[in-house]
Amino acid sequence: MAHDEKCPLCNSDGGRLLVASDWWRIVLAGDADHPAFTRVVWNAHVAEMSDLDELRRRELFDVVVRVESVQRAALAPDKINLASLGNQVPHLHWHVIPRWRDDRHFPDAVWGVARGGENARATARSAAVRARLDAYVGALQRAFDVTAPPAVEGR
Amino acid sequence: MAHDEKCPLCNSDGGRLLVASDWWRIVLAGDADHPAFTRVVWNAHVAEMSDLDELRRRELFDVVVRVESVQRAALAPDKINLASLGNQVPHLHWHVIPRWRDDRHFPDAVWGVARGGENARATARSAAVRARLDAYVGALQRAFDVTAPPAVEGR
Repeated sequence: MAHDEKCPLCNSDGGRLLVASDWWRIVLAGDADHPAFTRVVWNAHVAEMSDLDELRRRELFDVVVRVESVQRAALAPDKINLASLGNQVPHLHWHVIPRWRDDRHFPDAVWGVARGGENARATARSAAVRARLDAYVGALQRAFDVTAPPAVEGR
Repeated sequence: MAHDEKCPLCNSDGGRLLVASDWWRIVLAGDADHPAFTRVVWNAHVAEMSDLDELRRRELFDVVVRVESVQRAALAPDKINLASLGNQVPHLHWHVIPRWRDDRHFPDAVWGVARGGENARATARSAAVRARLDAYVGALQRAFDVTAPPAVEGR
């Protein structure tokens, strides 16, 4: 499997590991403003979707859409954001981010400028999402037939 | 077909129309800093990938990856960015953006803060991409078997 010893996604899970497979993994990004911000990371060190053959690419994107579906069912967000950027870490990974009209960055991308330093509604929103995080993680793991959290969080 | 009379992507192409099909269309965003910024827009007014059935979703995402492949072949960017956000316009559309290390926003997302007001390298980069834009558009249209530009640009 392609591996780059200097790549952070080759040397760590890149977040709290929720679901692991031979080809990809699902991690929680640990973003304070967006607690359910989830990433689907391809395990091998490749840069682009078009570097995968059709079968693997479909498998990965199907996983992304399943995460989206679980977020919609478990969290009822106003919108889902999907993105594969990789400018900082050119190792294929998808951001799957549930968004709310009152979150810290809406309607901008989460990579844009946050709205104000003190924003009571955004703080309340992130707290509300955090309160449902265990339920979301449980629903996600059930959707992928993971009956218990992975025993090993490190990599 | 689902239609929202207040939606800009229901009422216009959303850019310069390059390829049109019954289900989706490919448009050039017309971004000065990122001249080859391309969008794949689903024609019907739906918000999320998971609103499409599996067949249509695969068709749409295959189009996105084909655009990515044409960008890589025609423009040799340093990275491709893919994103479906829709916070401002919740009508399903994909951003397919070729990125270069010396472009205006790298390594941030294009929705982040631009690097400096005067940036000679970024200006030179966007000019270089613009110089290859006709070749890129031609390659894209050939990839989708469009032999001539669409006759009608309005919608």
